[in-house]
Amino acid sequence: MIEIAKITRPPRHIIEALRSLGTATIAGTLGHMGFRNPHMTGILPQTKGNVICGPALTLQCLPQRPDLYNHGEYADPETQLHRHVLYQVEEGDVVVVDARGDMRSGIFGDMMSTYFKGRGGAGIVIDGVMRDRPNVEKLDLPLWLKGWSPNFHVQTDIYPNAVNVTIACGGVTVVPGDIIVADDDGVVVVPLSMAQAVIEDGQKHAEWEEFSRMKLMAGESLQRYYPLHPDAEEEY
Amino acid sequence: MIEIAKITRPPRHIIEALRSLGTATIAGTLGHMGFRNPHMTGILPQTKGNVICGPALTLQCLPQRPDLYNHGEYADPETQLHRHVLYQVEEGDVVVVDARGDMRSGIFGDMMSTYFKGRGGAGIVIDGVMRDRPNVEKLDLPLWLKGWSPNFHVQTDIYPNAVNVTIACGGVTVVPGDIIVADDDGVVVVPLSMAQAVIEDGQKHAEWEEFSRMKLMAGESLQRYYPLHPDAEEEY
Amino acid sequence: MIEIAKITRPPRHIIEALRSLGTATIAGTLGHMGFRNPHMTGILPQTKGNVICGPALTLQCLPQRPDLYNHGEYADPETQLHRHVLYQVEEGDVVVVDARGDMRSGIFGDMMSTYFKGRGGAGIVIDGVMRDRPNVEKLDLPLWLKGWSPNFHVQTDIYPNAVNVTIACGGVTVVPGDIIVADDDGVVVVPLSMAQAVIEDGQKHAEWEEFSRMKLMAGESLQRYYPLHPDAEEEY
Amino acid sequence: MIEIAKITRPPRHIIEALRSLGTATIAGTLGHMGFRNPHMTGILPQTKGNVICGPALTLQCLPQRPDLYNHGEYADPETQLHRHVLYQVEEGDVVVVDARGDMRSGIFGDMMSTYFKGRGGAGIVIDGVMRDRPNVEKLDLPLWLKGWSPNFHVQTDIYPNAVNVTIACGGVTVVPGDIIVADDDGVVVVPLSMAQAVIEDGQKHAEWEEFSRMKLMAGESLQRYYPLHPDAEEEY
Amino acid sequence: MIEIAKITRPPRHIIEALRSLGTATIAGTLGHMGFRNPHMTGILPQTKGNVICGPALTLQCLPQRPDLYNHGEYADPETQLHRHVLYQVEEGDVVVVDARGDMRSGIFGDMMSTYFKGRGGAGIVIDGVMRDRPNVEKLDLPLWLKGWSPNFHVQTDIYPNAVNVTIACGGVTVVPGDIIVADDDGVVVVPLSMAQAVIEDGQKHAEWEEFSRMKLMAGESLQRYYPLHPDAEEEY
Amino acid sequence: MIEIAKITRPPRHIIEALRSLGTATIAGTLGHMGFRNPHMTGILPQTKGNVICGPALTLQCLPQRPDLYNHGEYADPETQLHRHVLYQVEEGDVVVVDARGDMRSGIFGDMMSTYFKGRGGAGIVIDGVMRDRPNVEKLDLPLWLKGWSPNFHVQTDIYPNAVNVTIACGGVTVVPGDIIVADDDGVVVVPLSMAQAVIEDGQKHAEWEEFSRMKLMAGESLQRYYPLHPDAEEEY
Repeated sequence: MIEIAKITRPPRHIIEALRSLGTATIAGTLGHMGFRNPHMTGILPQTKGNVICGPALTLQCLPQRPDLYNHGEYADPETQLHRHVLYQVEEGDVVVVDARGDMRSGIFGDMMSTYFKGRGGAGIVIDGVMRDRPNVEKLDLPLWLKGWSPNFHVQTDIYPNAVNVTIACGGVTVVPGDIIVADDDGVVVVPLSMAQAVIEDGQKHAEWEEFSRMKLMAGESLQRYYPLHPDAEEEY
Repeated sequence: MIEIAKITRPPRHIIEALRSLGTATIAGTLGHMGFRNPHMTGILPQTKGNVICGPALTLQCLPQRPDLYNHGEYADPETQLHRHVLYQVEEGDVVVVDARGDMRSGIFGDMMSTYFKGRGGAGIVIDGVMRDRPNVEKLDLPLWLKGWSPNFHVQTDIYPNAVNVTIACGGVTVVPGDIIVADDDGVVVVPLSMAQAVIEDGQKHAEWEEFSRMKLMAGESLQRYYPLHPDAEEEY
Repeated sequence: MIEIAKITRPPRHIIEALRSLGTATIAGTLGHMGFRNPHMTGILPQTKGNVICGPALTLQCLPQRPDLYNHGEYADPETQLHRHVLYQVEEGDVVVVDARGDMRSGIFGDMMSTYFKGRGGAGIVIDGVMRDRPNVEKLDLPLWLKGWSPNFHVQTDIYPNAVNVTIACGGVTVVPGDIIVADDDGVVVVPLSMAQAVIEDGQKHAEWEEFSRMKLMAGESLQRYYPLHPDAEEEY
Repeated sequence: MIEIAKITRPPRHIIEALRSLGTATIAGTLGHMGFRNPHMTGILPQTKGNVICGPALTLQCLPQRPDLYNHGEYADPETQLHRHVLYQVEEGDVVVVDARGDMRSGIFGDMMSTYFKGRGGAGIVIDGVMRDRPNVEKLDLPLWLKGWSPNFHVQTDIYPNAVNVTIACGGVTVVPGDIIVADDDGVVVVPLSMAQAVIEDGQKHAEWEEFSRMKLMAGESLQRYYPLHPDAEEEY
Repeated sequence: MIEIAKITRPPRHIIEALRSLGTATIAGTLGHMGFRNPHMTGILPQTKGNVICGPALTLQCLPQRPDLYNHGEYADPETQLHRHVLYQVEEGDVVVVDARGDMRSGIFGDMMSTYFKGRGGAGIVIDGVMRDRPNVEKLDLPLWLKGWSPNFHVQTDIYPNAVNVTIACGGVTVVPGDIIVADDDGVVVVPLSMAQAVIEDGQKHAEWEEFSRMKLMAGESLQRYYPLHPDAEEEY
Repeated sequence: MIEIAKITRPPRHIIEALRSLGTATIAGTLGHMGFRNPHMTGILPQTKGNVICGPALTLQCLPQRPDLYNHGEYADPETQLHRHVLYQVEEGDVVVVDARGDMRSGIFGDMMSTYFKGRGGAGIVIDGVMRDRPNVEKLDLPLWLKGWSPNFHVQTDIYPNAVNVTIACGGVTVVPGDIIVADDDGVVVVPLSMAQAVIEDGQKHAEWEEFSRMKLMAGESLQRYYPLHPDAEEEY
């Protein structure tokens, strides 16, 4: 039997607070806290306008070799680890896959995506590609990927090696249970231990920005309104 | 006079059957038949929702050198081979160009695309770019490309060297007359000699999948419904 | 105090004439005049259908080092040069940034973009990325970029080093005051001294093309209608 | 305390037999056995003429983040995992590092290499770089690397995350205890379970090749002497 | 039977004259004659100090597909086209291979190289890699490659598709029979029709340069001695 | 007349002290002082065993355009800026060129290198290539480059645009007058204002390391001898 580590899911108010901040505020705040690059480079939203936030379940892929993976033994679907990461999914979870940037291995397709959707998953993030785009898009599932390929997941060079281990994805380390936030700017990783501080710091910014934005749009002075100058605070 | 090899076009029922399977089923089936990667990496649909299938006419580009190509002699348009591949186009054909990944040479523009459309071409596939996007998009022509450039086809480093020879495009070998299938997952190549077997194998899958998809969307067991477990067959 | 060179803006009729030609005609004409590649490779329109033309204000970024840029001193926003390039903006100007292809440094965000819009800027071109996409897109601002990142402009490896100096962007040299034309084909650079000749040459092409396009769409002969054959001129 | 898995070392005769075959014979034999690419791409011998064979100890690096690695806590050298992989070294072992292709992080330097040499290590293989080349080269230690950097191992983007876990290096999966063979052709991985078969198959080839080589050098027929034609066997 | 086009070899005095000019003079002269880039980018000399010049025999590799290449049928060595390009070799010839930049397919190994040497081949140029480096280096054969791999030529993604057809190698088009000149600067291609002009122009430069070199080494004025100023001609 | 900024050269004892530290100690020390990456990635020593240290003269190259550079006007050698950076050379200087990574433009050749050597230049560093390797290597000049090409400096895409301006080279910003140190590990940049602190900090390390190195080579404990444990200090 395949043993898979369980993750601890963060409380709902943490999830909600991070989602409402958005990735730009979170990434900037993490940057000021010493997390230089919390953003997964090269992993793009597949439909605009989605915002998701949830704990990470991880899948690690590695280059194929015949003693670790072969098509024959693989005939039993239950040995396929990309299924097992989906078995772990609870409502609001995010599946994050280290596909090593491979552009020829469609990690999940139509049926796997449907199952993920049926279990209430929040979204999927892959340092690689998915397949069956014409059908998958009908599911209206939030996806951040490098692209698409019609090839199946073990058709060329990689295979799924482990579930819920620490991985790297898009140049960022992801520990199972980390909080993933993704929107049109891309995907950021919030370590659980930094989440509370990010929320506190991030919320400070938001309030006067709406006022400043209105002024700037009217062609007013950047020096006066961004950041808000003490002289302009009264006005606000 | 320029001699160009003619292609043999496959019967219509083969074309129709492959189009209805879609690239994901075809690529997977070809993979199981030993064609590891039938998918052209990095060549993306320029508008969503198109599905095309048709025989390949090919154009090979190579790096420029003054004894093989020069602007002076090139003044006579009839020496330009990118025109000659279009002269070959019959209804339903797909033009496939090996542009060697060049991002600065717009292989076809507005007028060439209009002519291609006028002859009933099914679509164009290029391991490179096209130009005149604002006008070309009005034609509503299915295109799979790496991108766009306003530069014309011989403006920088490459030139068209041969029509209807075997080429590579996006990492896949294309023989003139091969069947090209393209949709939102990308472009796959079906060798004529494998087409019948692909169709037979591909059609087996499709039937019970609709039933399973419905079950999975309702959050039912992946083990039971995908692939369809013998215990669930009766239910189906 | 920071000294920044002023640019000389070209007359309005030059701007209007270039905008109406579009990038494909301009790039082709420049190519025939010996400017092999006037097109910025890899910098893509972020929304389709925009066409802009205007003089370039430039911002040069370089790799960070602690003696030239450090977070402490940078606390005073007025030392941040990415603000200063925006202070130069007049109606119709285009800001062009050499971000050295960096994908992890969001050069401008929501507030800077709003200020740019408020001043009447025509558009922004970056050999790199912006941030705050969910908010920036509401501004309906024409943008040509390599992508997006939630990170702020000095969060990882680069910093703004100079305003209105000669830069390279997407493989093309840009002198402050050059005319930038951008549409769905991408971004081209028109040196001021070549603008008049480009306009004269470019306008010659446009007239009979509409007639030819109609013929080609009807499946007529490419040899006869493109370029327009003397025999067909009478018909036209 | 840091727990690290121990490896099982293969018997000496296996090691000796594989070393005498060389990587070309081994890679070819593995290829015929279904291990398509056992060769680490892009990892080059740093001095010519070395041949090593030994069991793999592995070190996995990942992108830095402040909750998993920070300079402050790292002050205690005993928390540094790149030291711990060296503590495991016995005579004849090969250390293999997944540095994720990073060219700016010198995984080991002068002192670590000296310690490795003192313990009798056979060689080091890194999908990245080392530092202190002027001193390290004096040790005459067999090294296969992507290059060199004077930066120390955690100076920029990565840090050592785990010892003796399964990694990928140069596009090949490496399990701790796998047999690594490296020479001027590069580095190959021999899974323990395939070693005996590789040896048996590989040895069949070697015998008549010396005879054929002599003939070919004299300009004799390739058809007759390679592979050795039945007609030529008598001659041999 | 496999039909292969024969090449016409240029007269010996052309070969000798080009060899004595060296690649830098040739490339520069070709550049001034309108051949912008006659240099194969990324293909490096494997041992220093070799200079070769000879006519090109070409081998074209393409991505594998099971209908064009399969291991089973390939069992008959005489169907392997990489052998057939060697069968064409006469004394002084250069074999040029378009391996599409593949780093995992050792095009030739020990035995093939020995046969090539035995037939008097001048050298081998590959946009890819060779194998068996420990043995091949004993042959002291001039080689320009991207590197080495122990894998055999059809072990992973490509196969040899045609002999003596026009190819591209390192970004330069090579027609069978073109003259290849290679030294420590790399590999250049001289089209037969440009050879005489290159020789005449190239020889003009060489004479006074030795004099100027001596002066410059002594710290004399660059303005006066390079290019040789009329005032300094008398001195010379 | 071309105006070029002069650099201020640092005192000889600074130069000597940095040279004797070597790049690994310097890069590490700069890293601890907040200069994350002072190492030029991808720029390799062309001959082993050289160590140089000297102030930087800089040359900036940019993509060609006909209004800024054209072959006709360029006929007068005195307009060529790559000559002007050499006119600035005094004994011990290092010329650093931002060639934008171009692999097809040999910035300096035989004669320019001879002149540089004649003036006593310490070495040349290029984010690109040189030409005339067979002759240049006879000069025994320390060079750090990406490689070689026989093409001349303006043969393809770039041209020299400015001398002694701030540039980036290999991912590091270089201000004219910065101290460049280069050895077999590569090239590092020491800002003048950080030089004294680097020397003081770097020298602390060197003393006990020789003792530790001897112990480690004998297989002694890494914990005890590196860094030197208080218990072992007496022994030392």
